[in-house]
Amino acid sequence: MRAIRDSQRLKRIFPVLDWGQRYSHEDLTGDALAAVIVTIMLVPQSLAYALLAGLPAEVGLYASILPLVAYGVFGTSRALAVGPVAVVSLMTASALAPLELASVQQYVAAAGLLALMSGMMLLAMGALRLGLVANFLSHPVIAGFITASGILIAVSQLRHILGISSGGHNLPEMLGGLWNGIATINPATAAIGVAAVSFLFWVRKGAAPFLVARGVSPSLAQTLARVGPVAAVALTTSVTWVLNLPGQGVEVVGAVPGGLPPLGLPQAPWEMIPALALPALLISVIGYVESVSVAQTLAAKRRQRIDPNQELVALGAANLSSGLSGGYPVTGGFARSVVNFDAGARTPAAGVMTAVGLLLAAMLLTPLLYFLPKATLAATIIVAVLSLVDLGVLMRAWRYSRADFAAVFVTIALTLLAGVEIGVGAGVILSLLLFVWKTSRPHVAEVGLVPGSEHFRNILRHQVVTDPAVLTLRIDESLYFANSARMEDLILDRVLQTPQPRHVILMCSAVNEIDLSALEVLEALNDRLRDMGVLLHLSEVKGPVMDRLIGTHFLDHLSGRVHLSQFDAFQALRSGGQMSGVAAR
Amino acid sequence: MRAIRDSQRLKRIFPVLDWGQRYSHEDLTGDALAAVIVTIMLVPQSLAYALLAGLPAEVGLYASILPLVAYGVFGTSRALAVGPVAVVSLMTASALAPLELASVQQYVAAAGLLALMSGMMLLAMGALRLGLVANFLSHPVIAGFITASGILIAVSQLRHILGISSGGHNLPEMLGGLWNGIATINPATAAIGVAAVSFLFWVRKGAAPFLVARGVSPSLAQTLARVGPVAAVALTTSVTWVLNLPGQGVEVVGAVPGGLPPLGLPQAPWEMIPALALPALLISVIGYVESVSVAQTLAAKRRQRIDPNQELVALGAANLSSGLSGGYPVTGGFARSVVNFDAGARTPAAGVMTAVGLLLAAMLLTPLLYFLPKATLAATIIVAVLSLVDLGVLMRAWRYSRADFAAVFVTIALTLLAGVEIGVGAGVILSLLLFVWKTSRPHVAEVGLVPGSEHFRNILRHQVVTDPAVLTLRIDESLYFANSARMEDLILDRVLQTPQPRHVILMCSAVNEIDLSALEVLEALNDRLRDMGVLLHLSEVKGPVMDRLIGTHFLDHLSGRVHLSQFDAFQALRSGGQMSGVAAR
Repeated sequence: MRAIRDSQRLKRIFPVLDWGQRYSHEDLTGDALAAVIVTIMLVPQSLAYALLAGLPAEVGLYASILPLVAYGVFGTSRALAVGPVAVVSLMTASALAPLELASVQQYVAAAGLLALMSGMMLLAMGALRLGLVANFLSHPVIAGFITASGILIAVSQLRHILGISSGGHNLPEMLGGLWNGIATINPATAAIGVAAVSFLFWVRKGAAPFLVARGVSPSLAQTLARVGPVAAVALTTSVTWVLNLPGQGVEVVGAVPGGLPPLGLPQAPWEMIPALALPALLISVIGYVESVSVAQTLAAKRRQRIDPNQELVALGAANLSSGLSGGYPVTGGFARSVVNFDAGARTPAAGVMTAVGLLLAAMLLTPLLYFLPKATLAATIIVAVLSLVDLGVLMRAWRYSRADFAAVFVTIALTLLAGVEIGVGAGVILSLLLFVWKTSRPHVAEVGLVPGSEHFRNILRHQVVTDPAVLTLRIDESLYFANSARMEDLILDRVLQTPQPRHVILMCSAVNEIDLSALEVLEALNDRLRDMGVLLHLSEVKGPVMDRLIGTHFLDHLSGRVHLSQFDAFQALRSGGQMSGVAAR
Repeated sequence: MRAIRDSQRLKRIFPVLDWGQRYSHEDLTGDALAAVIVTIMLVPQSLAYALLAGLPAEVGLYASILPLVAYGVFGTSRALAVGPVAVVSLMTASALAPLELASVQQYVAAAGLLALMSGMMLLAMGALRLGLVANFLSHPVIAGFITASGILIAVSQLRHILGISSGGHNLPEMLGGLWNGIATINPATAAIGVAAVSFLFWVRKGAAPFLVARGVSPSLAQTLARVGPVAAVALTTSVTWVLNLPGQGVEVVGAVPGGLPPLGLPQAPWEMIPALALPALLISVIGYVESVSVAQTLAAKRRQRIDPNQELVALGAANLSSGLSGGYPVTGGFARSVVNFDAGARTPAAGVMTAVGLLLAAMLLTPLLYFLPKATLAATIIVAVLSLVDLGVLMRAWRYSRADFAAVFVTIALTLLAGVEIGVGAGVILSLLLFVWKTSRPHVAEVGLVPGSEHFRNILRHQVVTDPAVLTLRIDESLYFANSARMEDLILDRVLQTPQPRHVILMCSAVNEIDLSALEVLEALNDRLRDMGVLLHLSEVKGPVMDRLIGTHFLDHLSGRVHLSQFDAFQALRSGGQMSGVAAR
């Protein structure tokens, strides 16, 4: 028994023990094919995202090797592919920029430290089972943040496409830099850049139908289309080499050290830790949210489930291993995971095989990357991130509610104007404050009996029966400190507007909590109503709320009663009914 | 018409125009008597609170003159007496301590600046009609803060009682200072201090019954008891003068400049403003909350109402005038307002007369204060603030709910250990976070029909009828981003535990809002349940929520229906009933 329990627990921590035991020949075939396709796709992507993060190209390769293995051991998703992704790369750049580091080595070390810290934070959150904390990022805030990040990333790459040396950490700075540099556009770079962007857009949208129309089988056509970025890399590298374009001012990746990733702690100054703490936390949470939503989407398609807390552990391990092997913060990426899934990956072994492929690339292919133009990598990034941009979310949020719109709008605006950390932080805080604000100004409806039923609805919306001596108010919110004083004012106002009430019933079907502040306000309300000759009743108080109230001074001194249902209360207190309200809707 | 409307508006801004018009002879008598009693009470109190704030004694007098007049013009409470109070004096000391000012003049100027800033903030909040913002301070947080402040103040005065020179900004520092200074107790000071404390406690509790037992009329006895502190001041001052106790090391108030309060802007360095902004805000909010709760309590006793927004304006004007006349932050005090009320004050004119009394005191009495021992003032403070200390709030909160207890406990502990600003700030933030946390982990009850009614209750608490094919879940919270993912998990788990459900009804009587994140989760839930062959229904959706849902993708694709009442839904979907649940409670 004990052995079985231990083995169950081990399998929860190391899901590899579970699927590894039942690994079949079919699994191997599916995984291997997926690994080949994802490897080909990841080589240019990982180089490009490293450049986006401001890091040397090889760091992107390193970040795609051990993290994949770590996720393979600990992860619960069968298809998630981890590695460098666009948004986290942007966040890394934005975290490291204020440190004003002197050398590339220091920059690389700081990026490794950031991955280590993010890994530790994710592991700690996993140990504390805080997977649900990610829910405090609302969908509109995430959508707004991803959209704004996509715009920032795309604009930041335009300088590589055009061969302009400009910078900037927010949209106005970037656009200003591009505008000022417009006279210094490098023609050869711009030719390669614009050609690569056009080619990649065509590959993404038009290549597969084009090939199918020419008799290629759909699945082969799709695979070929996915290899498009590699073709762009090969083609532009060859052209740059043959025409010696670096002589024309075309920036290339240059010498990339080959060989195994460097293992060990990054040689970062540890006094950076406080400055990196907040960025590391945001990278952890944003990366986790992105990754889990990809994993959940893919798991649902095969009726599998993922364990959100174990995902924290797996992503933590992935980032820790990235930091210890010359990489930078990583997470599960949407595009590559979908490719992995579509190509038939059946277990996390596909990720481990991909890691082997990238290891071979890091050892053998780096000399071939010398003449790879940065403009090509920028084109890869632009085409990838523009699919993240979804400004329609603004319209959808506006149509649904002003509060959701405010959260999206502020997130997008501040991310573009003030940077990723401020943008997402303000979005989270604003959406929480808006929620609290809404609950502090609750809806209160006077209700009456729907004829022929025992159901009570708003007298302003439904044709209902009321009684002149009984005022029934449905309180549409939990009663707590932020709304209890307002609620007291509102109830007293309604009582004063009613000609001659003898009973006030508070219908508590929507009151999920009464806190101590609200309890004191209810006590005062009870006293004031009694002084006015009005009895206070409650109806439909829920079990958990009633448990609290029992034995309090309020319940002992309540002038009226607590009724099980509103109908019971109304039957007991009514004198003579009258119809009120508009036609039922 | 227009003239009447203008006059109404003017009366709202200047309530004095309203009660002034109808001022009668009885009003004058009541007000004048109250003014005399409050003046006698305020002279030692205002000196003592100024010393508590670290200011020269005369500043306390200045803060009790013009602010009373300003409140008299703008205030809506008939009995509130504004001036220096203990908690705000403590907060002033704690705001000014970190500035490390070199001279007393600078310290006085900074205190004046703090009053000016607080006045501007209160006026701005009044103009924006933000009176309700004060509700975000929950009752437990206020109670905890006042209790902890009372303890801090009492302990801080012990050094004056014992004649030790020690300091400290939090409880451990203060206690440590007292412990280290125990060998340096000044015998003469301690004799005066201990005698004054004992006498004042006796005056507070035992003097009135003692006098009544000796044939004094109860009302005269009460008045005499209120004059007790003045007697203590007169007696100890005389003793100190006659025995020349300053030669024995007894600290006295010393030379107090007589004359009118200095009018004009405080000569403070304006670059202090950023450092004082947060303390000024906290002083404004805490002062406002204290003052309004006193005003409301007294108004209720005479069935009058106060206008919370106009109170912001009145307190703003009071602080502004305090800052412009050599004072420091003021607010409505509990003890003096009760005395004012009990002594028969009928209009704010009582406050104006008190101001005249204190003006005379400032002009004529200051030479008499030279030999007033600081120990006597400390005794006045200790006896006054110990009535604020109510540690029973911890027990009451613990019995009612752990969340309320956590808010009180953290507020008390942090106020004692880390200071007033951190204490109250942490209390507010913690109580908001606890509220959000609770709403993010909502209660969900499976409900069934109470036999013989149309009412549905929790199957675990009541004897109810359920149907094997219909799973009804009552969602006890608004659906929003922080709980929607959890809710989806919970609903799916319940569905998987039910043998063969065909319908799931979400009873939405307690759902006061569905935000965009939750809407997306509901869409996904609808799809997943449909894939499992289960139809999703809603019941008792409230008007405001339904208004939102109409026209959304979710409602268009809902596999089941939206039913007006849960009973309608159950009648339409049930196949054959069965009894479940425990005995009704």
